[in-house]
Amino acid sequence: MRVKDSDWLHQRIQNTKSFLCVGLDSDISRLPLSVLDHDDPVFTFNKEIIDHTFEYCIAYKINTAFYESMGVKGWESLKKTINYIPKTHLIIADAKRGDIGNTSLQYAKAFFDAMNCDAITVAPYMGEDSIAPFLTYKDKWTIILGLTSNQGSSDFQVLNTEGESKVYEQVLRKSKEWGTTDQIMYVVGATKPEYLEDIRKIIPDHFLLVPGVGAQGGDLEAVYNYGKNSQVGLLVNSSRGIIFASSDSDYGIAAGKKAQVLQKQMKQLLNS
Amino acid sequence: MRVKDSDWLHQRIQNTKSFLCVGLDSDISRLPLSVLDHDDPVFTFNKEIIDHTFEYCIAYKINTAFYESMGVKGWESLKKTINYIPKTHLIIADAKRGDIGNTSLQYAKAFFDAMNCDAITVAPYMGEDSIAPFLTYKDKWTIILGLTSNQGSSDFQVLNTEGESKVYEQVLRKSKEWGTTDQIMYVVGATKPEYLEDIRKIIPDHFLLVPGVGAQGGDLEAVYNYGKNSQVGLLVNSSRGIIFASSDSDYGIAAGKKAQVLQKQMKQLLNS
Repeated sequence: MRVKDSDWLHQRIQNTKSFLCVGLDSDISRLPLSVLDHDDPVFTFNKEIIDHTFEYCIAYKINTAFYESMGVKGWESLKKTINYIPKTHLIIADAKRGDIGNTSLQYAKAFFDAMNCDAITVAPYMGEDSIAPFLTYKDKWTIILGLTSNQGSSDFQVLNTEGESKVYEQVLRKSKEWGTTDQIMYVVGATKPEYLEDIRKIIPDHFLLVPGVGAQGGDLEAVYNYGKNSQVGLLVNSSRGIIFASSDSDYGIAAGKKAQVLQKQMKQLLNS
Repeated sequence: MRVKDSDWLHQRIQNTKSFLCVGLDSDISRLPLSVLDHDDPVFTFNKEIIDHTFEYCIAYKINTAFYESMGVKGWESLKKTINYIPKTHLIIADAKRGDIGNTSLQYAKAFFDAMNCDAITVAPYMGEDSIAPFLTYKDKWTIILGLTSNQGSSDFQVLNTEGESKVYEQVLRKSKEWGTTDQIMYVVGATKPEYLEDIRKIIPDHFLLVPGVGAQGGDLEAVYNYGKNSQVGLLVNSSRGIIFASSDSDYGIAAGKKAQVLQKQMKQLLNS
């Protein structure tokens, strides 16, 4: 199996004409009635979503919170979902973990070994030794929160520090030294595409995971124009806009259509 | 069942003459050989540790990473451990979660509802709306990372922001407005007790969860002297120093002895 490095991602983008990541935020309280009498409703739902979307995307992002909220059963759904995703796709655990070194190492084992994910999102607040254990996995991706797409990003991330650089810019500047551009990606919210230009001055070569297109209101074209690099360098995520496109039994087909619309927009941008 | 608010904690501290929290960082690779042939070695180990330590402590902190690293089976051990802890003790999920609002709400459900913990640690990087969902649980504790005890805390937490206040001080100042002193605690590392004096100027009335006594080298007396308030206001955690006091089959007894030593020191401080 080829390592899923940045060249691999770039090639997948060119072959699929897509840099779409589908977010499996499979909130059980929003699943269609038709799946609820199945043994594992969340896995049944995810299977159908994956079947109808995989040809339009290159990655799946699994939001661990929606699985943990169901306790042990949720972790079973999570594991089955990961096993079902085609090996042609990047599997991201959107877990936002981060702790002291010996603990982060356990999270790395959890998601890279036990769960066999290709990537994990991590929070930078605790600094280098909280992220270093993830980076000991040379063929996996560590995706560090840079500038997030939510309102609360204005509380601490954009505080000015000495030298006029914002906290999130300090995060980018320091953390990019901790690993290679085949190991580190950054989360950069799509709701602030104008920031992408400045961000690209600090990290021109890194892949960016961009949430917030769709439900959170980001604009795909602006993200592409401000954020692309020589390898495209973008994974744009859409979760609720795709997976909850229909609340009826046609939810798979509806999700596929939504994913296809985004993929077509991406193809146009890639060809432009 | 009485709500485990700050008055309850204060009373438990006075009755037990202890502000000790025992950290169940039950790394399976460090468990005594004698438990490894049990069906659920981690739960067997935890049960023995709890039986020998509960009279010396008032809280247990469960480091979720050491359970997640074992996948589904780990979550089963986690659930069984939580159910086993006496209701007289505060149960803290040391999970360091935090994400956009709809996702943090799922984490709150996971640890407060499905897992029935009394408290969870959360990371502040994503700001207010990433923490607010936890605070909708009025009778639970949300423990926000302030100044952590690891080396990487120097990377971003202590950066000076405009007005000379450090990032972690901004976290304390802003976040204390988001809930009451019966809902919010802060993680403040014991390896920097001299910071506690300044921290108490910002948050005089909050309980602090202080990791790092023992394996991480913090000094109990300094923590008490710089950190105590009118309700004592401290939960001092020790994990590895207690639970791995012996690697033989007497690990429970050894853990109890270590916990008792700390409890005696705490009793002296409380009586001084």
